[in-house]
Amino acid sequence: CCVSINSKTLKPDEPCKRIVLYYHDILFNGTDLANATSAKITNDTQFGYHFGMMVVFDDPMTKDGHLHSPPVARAQGFYFYDKRGTYNAWFAYTLIFNSTEYKGTLNIMGADPLPEKTRDLSVVGGTGDFFMARGIATFTTEDAQGDYYFRLQMDIKLYECYKT
Amino acid sequence: CCVSINSKTLKPDEPCKRIVLYYHDILFNGTDLANATSAKITNDTQFGYHFGMMVVFDDPMTKDGHLHSPPVARAQGFYFYDKRGTYNAWFAYTLIFNSTEYKGTLNIMGADPLPEKTRDLSVVGGTGDFFMARGIATFTTEDAQGDYYFRLQMDIKLYECYKT
Amino acid sequence: CCVSINSKTLKPDEPCKRIVLYYHDILFNGTDLANATSAKITNDTQFGYHFGMMVVFDDPMTKDGHLHSPPVARAQGFYFYDKRGTYNAWFAYTLIFNSTEYKGTLNIMGADPLPEKTRDLSVVGGTGDFFMARGIATFTTEDAQGDYYFRLQMDIKLYECYKT
Repeated sequence: CCVSINSKTLKPDEPCKRIVLYYHDILFNGTDLANATSAKITNDTQFGYHFGMMVVFDDPMTKDGHLHSPPVARAQGFYFYDKRGTYNAWFAYTLIFNSTEYKGTLNIMGADPLPEKTRDLSVVGGTGDFFMARGIATFTTEDAQGDYYFRLQMDIKLYECYKT
Repeated sequence: CCVSINSKTLKPDEPCKRIVLYYHDILFNGTDLANATSAKITNDTQFGYHFGMMVVFDDPMTKDGHLHSPPVARAQGFYFYDKRGTYNAWFAYTLIFNSTEYKGTLNIMGADPLPEKTRDLSVVGGTGDFFMARGIATFTTEDAQGDYYFRLQMDIKLYECYKT
Repeated sequence: CCVSINSKTLKPDEPCKRIVLYYHDILFNGTDLANATSAKITNDTQFGYHFGMMVVFDDPMTKDGHLHSPPVARAQGFYFYDKRGTYNAWFAYTLIFNSTEYKGTLNIMGADPLPEKTRDLSVVGGTGDFFMARGIATFTTEDAQGDYYFRLQMDIKLYECYKT
């Protein structure tokens, strides 16, 4: 018996599951209490570029890029800005699926250097239909309107899938 | 040689290791400095349901549900509330074992939607006796006394165990 | 076909890849805006030992212990203090490599109990040259000058390496 885990091959373009969704972040601006889906919990520091500002979110995930499309999942977690001289963020969050298609969660963390066209974060675990999954979440900024709305495409590719 | 990692079967009811422990969170209320094990580091936002409140904790873990039983591990990390209209939290923390039974850590993250009877988070790694482990931590609320004490059962099931 | 993932052997002293780097944290003290690489975003609580203080960082990683050596990576993320009676921290961050040697990221989280000579955290995922990696990051404090500078050796051992 037994293969060593130290020497496996995985093909980045052959995930065992792939889900492309759109993340909409509507940051509370002090007045739009009805619509906002995220809120600042710490303030900018003197470093500029929002360095130190942390945001908690419960954001809708849609199948297309339209904010008002029916959400197929929620993204719950936080991000903060962490660089001087440019916008650069760091995310940790959970995608929560509760639809006819999927029930379960994916847990994701990693850096989001905004100047890069695409950014890869790690899918570090999953539950329910995504039991024990791992993979990569690729972010692409699709829209950014001032400080209070942005939309990311999240291209979720799982390379470890488990049958239960 | 070699199996593909893309097509494995795991049985949720057959973990390679299982540990059931109880988490006790005593949030500092401004006066109980002697007993509190956690403290708020950011304030509620206008969203309600403690949205935006972040808590840092160093909480005892016991083998039964009694707060004053001898702790067999510590849970160190943070949680915050992140939903409007209901209580919903997000956790990232480390279980630190330093007993005759176990020495090492388990690192855990994920969403904790309180209205659900049970919630699954991801065990994303481990060290020491839990070297490189992965699995699922299932939360059940056992007790909640106002804002300042709650107890969770954490049912930790590992599905990747490594001999060293 | 198929091995069970539940019964593998890994040798801690035989990682499939090992990288030793030094982390330099220069905490903003209110005046050294030019040099600081990290900033406090929440304040100490009444618990002492900086309990509750959270710091966001974009810190240089060097191949030797010299602060002014050319950085070979950045560490971006946060830590906070979470213990009474002693200094004890918790980290989550991304190592970002963008050199001729490596391009990609490693995502790391775990507890950092400072009184221990060495502390193990989990490498929970990676991207680029570290696609889907997992492992252990061992911290050793090399220097600590008051509250505003410390240096850690980070000994990164990967036990899951994937060819792409």
